[in-house]
Amino acid sequence: MDNFSEKSRARLDTLTRLIQSSLDGYMNEQTEKADKQKKVAEAMAYSLSAGGKRIRPLLVLEFCRVCGGDVNSAVSAACALEMIHTFSLIHDDLPCMDNDDYRRGKPSCHKAYGESEALLAGDALLNLAYGIISRDERISPETAIKLIANLTEAVGVFGMIGGQVIDTDYDGDMDEKLLLEMYSMKTGALLKTACQMGCIAAGAEEAKLEYAAVYAEKLGLAFQIIDDILDITGDEKLLGKPVGSDKECGKVTYASLKGVEAAREAARRLTDEAMDALSHFEDTEFLKELTMFLLKREY
Amino acid sequence: MDNFSEKSRARLDTLTRLIQSSLDGYMNEQTEKADKQKKVAEAMAYSLSAGGKRIRPLLVLEFCRVCGGDVNSAVSAACALEMIHTFSLIHDDLPCMDNDDYRRGKPSCHKAYGESEALLAGDALLNLAYGIISRDERISPETAIKLIANLTEAVGVFGMIGGQVIDTDYDGDMDEKLLLEMYSMKTGALLKTACQMGCIAAGAEEAKLEYAAVYAEKLGLAFQIIDDILDITGDEKLLGKPVGSDKECGKVTYASLKGVEAAREAARRLTDEAMDALSHFEDTEFLKELTMFLLKREY
Repeated sequence: MDNFSEKSRARLDTLTRLIQSSLDGYMNEQTEKADKQKKVAEAMAYSLSAGGKRIRPLLVLEFCRVCGGDVNSAVSAACALEMIHTFSLIHDDLPCMDNDDYRRGKPSCHKAYGESEALLAGDALLNLAYGIISRDERISPETAIKLIANLTEAVGVFGMIGGQVIDTDYDGDMDEKLLLEMYSMKTGALLKTACQMGCIAAGAEEAKLEYAAVYAEKLGLAFQIIDDILDITGDEKLLGKPVGSDKECGKVTYASLKGVEAAREAARRLTDEAMDALSHFEDTEFLKELTMFLLKREY
Repeated sequence: MDNFSEKSRARLDTLTRLIQSSLDGYMNEQTEKADKQKKVAEAMAYSLSAGGKRIRPLLVLEFCRVCGGDVNSAVSAACALEMIHTFSLIHDDLPCMDNDDYRRGKPSCHKAYGESEALLAGDALLNLAYGIISRDERISPETAIKLIANLTEAVGVFGMIGGQVIDTDYDGDMDEKLLLEMYSMKTGALLKTACQMGCIAAGAEEAKLEYAAVYAEKLGLAFQIIDDILDITGDEKLLGKPVGSDKECGKVTYASLKGVEAAREAARRLTDEAMDALSHFEDTEFLKELTMFLLKREY
């Protein structure tokens, strides 16, 4: 995160600590109270603590702030989203899906705890996500219901789960339209709800939610296309997984479909559009630096 | 349902039709709007329409009515609960869990649609359950949030999912205390939230929720213990599955642990206590007949 100003770096630290301590708090409630079901509570905590950059919860908190809200009113939504992201990784890694033994260098949940435990841990994380928002006394019922409605849309058949279905059913047989639709559902939907839930928690007007959706869509597409380019041209450190793995799996990507140069052009355009969408919010220095950090990988 | 009065039979028909048409409506919304993800929407509808007696949604609607509420304000909660019950059946049948090829005489979801599709259909049903409550304009945000909070508790690590974990981890190695705890979590928790969500939808006072919990707990335990007895002494028609299957699987049940006579005694006592708990509600003729229908199997 070399491009961050000192102020943004401090902000990143503060937000990341808030997310981590809140997630720990929710998990401790489960593991401490659990008795004979401790194993599934531990499996949930194991995968939730496996890390990652916590991009989605960061976006929830930061969009709340740039809409003039108190970040504390967005904490349960931020943690709920990270739980749902983690649930999706646990289920995606299962043998009947991608059958991945490792996730971020650690054994995947079903490798560490067994398949049935991993299945149930994923189910329980999805369920708990809605539980923590519904029990959050820092937000009004009106706000909580809007958050849950937004989040369920993003997760369901017309969001993340639908994108996963397309990825599973059409692997290797996609045109540009379907590929972009799949990107937008599979990864874009959670980014969109991240930004929009931040706005909702701040009580922002409807127009802000629209701008947040535009930002999230451009960010998600740009990130995915840069990933595709790096899979062809990049080094493994930037990519975080072996170069060439998409091609090996016979996976259609934007860069393989349109060529690397067209993909670079698209990534640059989308990055500009994402940055433009931020102009509708106040005090966005940190968000802009975060965006450039996510998108300025050498491609 | 021979024990039903004419009035109760009419009531059962009305409620069952309301549940079925509402579930169909929710599913049609998904399948009609779905395009490339149609298969998962169809898998959801397939399992949700596989039937069963709709006991849980019936209890939601009827507890709403006996608390003086309008059943229409309990419809989304009733359907949400049936979606969650169905999600749990889909995931329980998966090869990594009970590995059941059939469910109510039809191929189980993963046999009909494949494992990955069944996994995602279960996930999507759990998610949609919270979606339909959060988007129900017939109820206030306050009521919707209370419903979701109650339902998430019943489903999570300290409810149905926790019971499933105990069943998986301690199979064949349970004492009476753990067995009753497992019964109470695995099947009791959804019955409790059924009755309590009905009360919540009606805006009932806290005391009613307590009586509803007592009723549900007794009903669930009695039903489970009668099931155990029938597995030893009964005929398959009453049981709905092959007699002796628990013993074959090396499963500890209340009847195998305490003996058939003690189990009969417990079932009779619990049935009386369930009926007593209903005395705190008005106009319970139908609920009482439904209870006796569920518990008066020859045991």
